Amino acid sequence: MTEQTTLSEMRFDPDAEAAGIDAPFIAVEIARLLAAGDVATIREFIESQELADVAAIAEELEAGDDLKLLGLLPLHDQAELLGYLRPRAQVDLATRIPRRELVALMTAMSHDERADLYKQLDDEAKEAILPAFSKAEREDLRRLAAYEEWTVGSVMTSDYATLKPDMTSSQAIEALRAQAIEAETIYYAYIIDDARKLIGVISLRDLLTARPRQQVSDLMDTEPVWTRVDDEQEEAARLIARYDLLALPVLDAENGLVGIVTADDAMDVSQDEVTEDFYKGAIVQPLEISVSEATITMLYKARIFWLVLLVFGNIFSGAGIAYFEDTIAAHLSLLFFLPLLIASGGNAGTQSATLMVRALATGDVRPADFGTLLSREVVIALSLGLTMAVAVSFIGVWRGGPEIALVVALAMVSIVLMGALIGMCLPFIFAKLNRDPAAASGPLVTSIADVLGVLIYFTLAAQLLSL
Amino acid sequence: MTEQTTLSEMRFDPDAEAAGIDAPFIAVEIARLLAAGDVATIREFIESQELADVAAIAEELEAGDDLKLLGLLPLHDQAELLGYLRPRAQVDLATRIPRRELVALMTAMSHDERADLYKQLDDEAKEAILPAFSKAEREDLRRLAAYEEWTVGSVMTSDYATLKPDMTSSQAIEALRAQAIEAETIYYAYIIDDARKLIGVISLRDLLTARPRQQVSDLMDTEPVWTRVDDEQEEAARLIARYDLLALPVLDAENGLVGIVTADDAMDVSQDEVTEDFYKGAIVQPLEISVSEATITMLYKARIFWLVLLVFGNIFSGAGIAYFEDTIAAHLSLLFFLPLLIASGGNAGTQSATLMVRALATGDVRPADFGTLLSREVVIALSLGLTMAVAVSFIGVWRGGPEIALVVALAMVSIVLMGALIGMCLPFIFAKLNRDPAAASGPLVTSIADVLGVLIYFTLAAQLLSL
Repeated sequence: MTEQTTLSEMRFDPDAEAAGIDAPFIAVEIARLLAAGDVATIREFIESQELADVAAIAEELEAGDDLKLLGLLPLHDQAELLGYLRPRAQVDLATRIPRRELVALMTAMSHDERADLYKQLDDEAKEAILPAFSKAEREDLRRLAAYEEWTVGSVMTSDYATLKPDMTSSQAIEALRAQAIEAETIYYAYIIDDARKLIGVISLRDLLTARPRQQVSDLMDTEPVWTRVDDEQEEAARLIARYDLLALPVLDAENGLVGIVTADDAMDVSQDEVTEDFYKGAIVQPLEISVSEATITMLYKARIFWLVLLVFGNIFSGAGIAYFEDTIAAHLSLLFFLPLLIASGGNAGTQSATLMVRALATGDVRPADFGTLLSREVVIALSLGLTMAVAVSFIGVWRGGPEIALVVALAMVSIVLMGALIGMCLPFIFAKLNRDPAAASGPLVTSIADVLGVLIYFTLAAQLLSL
Repeated sequence: MTEQTTLSEMRFDPDAEAAGIDAPFIAVEIARLLAAGDVATIREFIESQELADVAAIAEELEAGDDLKLLGLLPLHDQAELLGYLRPRAQVDLATRIPRRELVALMTAMSHDERADLYKQLDDEAKEAILPAFSKAEREDLRRLAAYEEWTVGSVMTSDYATLKPDMTSSQAIEALRAQAIEAETIYYAYIIDDARKLIGVISLRDLLTARPRQQVSDLMDTEPVWTRVDDEQEEAARLIARYDLLALPVLDAENGLVGIVTADDAMDVSQDEVTEDFYKGAIVQPLEISVSEATITMLYKARIFWLVLLVFGNIFSGAGIAYFEDTIAAHLSLLFFLPLLIASGGNAGTQSATLMVRALATGDVRPADFGTLLSREVVIALSLGLTMAVAVSFIGVWRGGPEIALVVALAMVSIVLMGALIGMCLPFIFAKLNRDPAAASGPLVTSIADVLGVLIYFTLAAQLLSL
């Protein structure tokens, strides 16, 4: 059978490159096997695959076929696969699963992922499934789904492992063994008192290496890193990265433990944060979902605001040019150098802004470092400007003679310096105003530098050429 | 004592906000306590702190004081702290530690971190310490330090936990207990045959939940995700993120297990990769080290190449304007609209380029999706262009009359469409040519759009206004 060969070729093979799978291609094969009723081959294939990859294949299948594929997996794997689907595909699939099966599936899902799915269902679907959950599950679902999008609460999960302080290490290991099926991780366990207040954290590694009779209270870290449920989710991601944690405990206002954020979820948060910063750098407003899933209207809305706003900014550049119409009319050769001078200011500014935005975002520099960085930037910008002035002065002599060359060279140094300083200062000004430095985007810096560049160039020209 | 109060206020306190520590401020306190000989207070304080924070404090201390602070920690914590220091601070400190102590410290460090430190030492220091290591440690150090910067080998560590396939789960747990002091992680264990070939992976969680007599070979995942030692390190980070792994096994060309990449190191790799993408988006060439540690010369070199290159690109814009000097001289009011039209093309292009670069980097879209995305982009760009044409046509009527308004409106639609399509296509062209799509930066897109924008605007003007 050709199909069998095709699928088994996709198996783990240390001699092949780990290039990842071609989901659309495999989906065609799976559909063919489903039509032919050859379930055994599919089952054998998907058992050899990572669930993230099976999810990618499921997304490529026709409605109906995806449910059949899902049905070939044990319940726990089904639940995990559902968590790997992209939001839209997840909701699409969930609404086609019969109510009772969906509830069973969601019960087996990790608490954070099922809350994310629940949030996306329409009200009718929510009301239909809610009564089928146990009281505890229902409350957990409602509680996790209630946190606002940007909070730690919205990315934390409530299925964490807990221990009592008076357990011995061997009792604790037994307790974790029992919690292993339910808990998102058992590699960190949280020690809480009767009021659910967090009093310590211990790793499974420390429990394993301790003597069997040692008490958890003697072994635990009593001053763990933690975060608040209503903090920004980026703060949780930042702490996890800084302290190399596998999970971070989340406390409510009364210091009660309400959840944990795991490292893999923190990675997703960082990635979303980075994407948002990229968008800001290109004057695109945040998209709720990925580009491939976004509608044309969503993309239009994310882009039009800044485009129109900056057009009005550029009117000032136009007005600047209009103001110098006489100088320009007298020396039309000045126009030749307008694009390269203006662009250089914007480019140098974009460089500075990006270096600063990124350094502030990673914590490499702090707002307090502004003074040191500014004096360094002046030296760098002057060096850049001088190099470029030399480069363009040759063109200046060639196109317009020594006088024009002098104007162009002087303008270049001034404009690059001005652009670089705007690009460097704007992120700090934004930080000072408690706004995201990333809003100091290349296009914004460029627009400001454009106006000033026009004024610098033609003022220098008007002064020097009228002498 | 005021000092004691100050330091103890920094302790774990669930009622305070987890705002992070103010390292420079605490360093002043520590220096004062060191001068006063009050070691007990310092010791009590640093024991309550995370080592990453103590490292940040150590970086702020004067030479000498930092060694005294380090000396207050147990050896294992000293080794971990050293790994948290920034590269330059790390080397600076290491060269001041006596040879024998440094060797003891490096022996206690995790294998990847000590190899990174070793690489940065000068040849004299390398030769001085190398003979003091045991033969096995020396070979490990040399081998890890030999991998090229961009490879998986350069970020992997060789202190992973291994098991034999014929162990029972309880024997395996005992084996991991014994390896817990040395191994970077014991939450994943790697099953190898006598030739060190990787034959499976098992998690400590699966071992704990198995029946005590079950064999590792029956429990392990025989088709784990893995990577090659000479693959790009970003590939390892991508796999760890995609499959939510805590660690990824690394194989050599003969499929022998040579190391693992842990999730926290993968996070650092992703962050460096993201920083590089931000730099590319702002025509800044990669920096080997962070902005705060980079010298003025390094920053100058990272910026000058593209600045000068793009100046020469902008000469074409200048030439375009020069070509239309007669049209411009006849209708000087056209100049008023030049900046806003040109900027809009660049801005729309920067938006498209960034959306595509990011979507390609995260795997949200694939090069194969080009056709679909292109037709969608045409619709979006036309909508954006029309909206902006309406906005500027009012200004056109006001500044130059209905004819100019018509020219400006038509130019706006064409230029925005052109800019957006260049921004959208360039990343895909780069991907097709096996170059990083991120090189399709805003400034590059803008430079190309500028030239074409000038030509479109004045061609339209020359045609329509001469009618």
